[in-house]
Amino acid sequence: MKKQSITAEIFSKKSYLCIGLDTDWRKLPPCVHKEKDPIFAFNRRIIDATANHCVAYKLNLAFYESAGPKGWESLAQTLAYIPKNIFTIADAKRGDIGNTSDLYAYTFFKQYPFQAVTVSPYMGKDSIEPFLNYADKWTILLALTSNRGSEDFQHLVVGADNKPLYQVVVERAMQWGSSEQLMFVVGATQPEGVAAVRRLAPDYFLLVPGYGAQKGDLEAVSKAGLTRFGGLLVNASRAILYASSDNNFDKEAQKQAQAIAMQMSYYLEKYACQ
Amino acid sequence: MKKQSITAEIFSKKSYLCIGLDTDWRKLPPCVHKEKDPIFAFNRRIIDATANHCVAYKLNLAFYESAGPKGWESLAQTLAYIPKNIFTIADAKRGDIGNTSDLYAYTFFKQYPFQAVTVSPYMGKDSIEPFLNYADKWTILLALTSNRGSEDFQHLVVGADNKPLYQVVVERAMQWGSSEQLMFVVGATQPEGVAAVRRLAPDYFLLVPGYGAQKGDLEAVSKAGLTRFGGLLVNASRAILYASSDNNFDKEAQKQAQAIAMQMSYYLEKYACQ
Repeated sequence: MKKQSITAEIFSKKSYLCIGLDTDWRKLPPCVHKEKDPIFAFNRRIIDATANHCVAYKLNLAFYESAGPKGWESLAQTLAYIPKNIFTIADAKRGDIGNTSDLYAYTFFKQYPFQAVTVSPYMGKDSIEPFLNYADKWTILLALTSNRGSEDFQHLVVGADNKPLYQVVVERAMQWGSSEQLMFVVGATQPEGVAAVRRLAPDYFLLVPGYGAQKGDLEAVSKAGLTRFGGLLVNASRAILYASSDNNFDKEAQKQAQAIAMQMSYYLEKYACQ
Repeated sequence: MKKQSITAEIFSKKSYLCIGLDTDWRKLPPCVHKEKDPIFAFNRRIIDATANHCVAYKLNLAFYESAGPKGWESLAQTLAYIPKNIFTIADAKRGDIGNTSDLYAYTFFKQYPFQAVTVSPYMGKDSIEPFLNYADKWTILLALTSNRGSEDFQHLVVGADNKPLYQVVVERAMQWGSSEQLMFVVGATQPEGVAAVRRLAPDYFLLVPGYGAQKGDLEAVSKAGLTRFGGLLVNASRAILYASSDNNFDKEAQKQAQAIAMQMSYYLEKYACQ
């Protein structure tokens, strides 16, 4: 999916919501247990209920691979079920030496044809290039994450640059991939980080997790990150997926997604067209 | 497996060789294609041929997950086949926010009962703790990797410490996990890095990839890293697995493993007992 198509989808739906299909097989409502593939059955109902209110779905691999080989079947089924106008992200946080990253890229771009995959920067350029070599796909690099542990290394000030590590990561990575194929992860819990990355990388999309259960501030993030081309994908997972644990889970998920999208519609008008 | 058991295995076998079962389904010799599970058939013959010469097997997940759901079946079969006295490592380089890392830990310690898993440090303490919570398992943290991209961020001098990032990673992580449950990855291509980490973490095991196809210097690494308790697991993958592409691949793999183990026996005597 091209950058301009993502932008078009955002302004058409008036939403930059990404829904994290972090479907925890330990938390599935009883009503889907009788289905042949409970994880997919749950996801299908969530997708049916929310597809009009979001522009992306993000599948965190931990939830699927922890279910064993059948978890990967659920992943494939879910990916195939997502409407084609919606952006798909494998939240895998992979990264390895070149010949190994090649295979990870194959896994998430070919074996399971996602539009995008998240990648960890720690191993540097040659661990990321194999993903960028897929010019029609997206590489989403961790910059500043939403968790407390982001303080441990990402905020360390780097020597000669006199900047925090996450900003050095963004600056270097911009030399490796254009804004047509590279995005950055910046946690919703750190709106000042969103603002800093937006200044460094004005043309790049940012994937912003940590809204909802992790208590990120949507307005602060939107103000700091929205641009004329949209520029943000703000993710919520648990707040939508587990809005109810009853058979009406999809209706409650829809209400949550719709409520978030309505806020986003307001922020798009307020901040995206400045 | 306890630290003292790994040490005992090293001095008993006079080897600190870890064999990377990075079994690439695109490179399998024709003779295994007729087997029901070609990846496992290949691995079984490699294990039969090399188990006397190594103390650990490391399975890089990229090779298994790129083969689709059946790749995970091959992984499970291989893991179950490895003799119980040999240490097993899931080279997964995972890491995510706490509740998600919980599930990654479950995957590689319970769903697939490896002894150890490799983890990326970028997301900090709360991304690593869920692995360390399994006190009878091992967490192996990336510190200084063997690839060229290690220059990009790992060698950056950071913060008040005025030290390269990989050393800060080692120092902080030592506060999170003891040498009975935490190891560090340091690439064989950087023996001075092995020496530096050995100085910082004298009691910790180091997993050293990059020997063989990546041209790491075994003697320099051994001199820098061996200790009274052994302290090193030096990994070779391609140099052993693909020593021959014919039906005699296991015999050739055995010769390679044996030759490396013989060198190691010499270095153990020379450097481990100082």
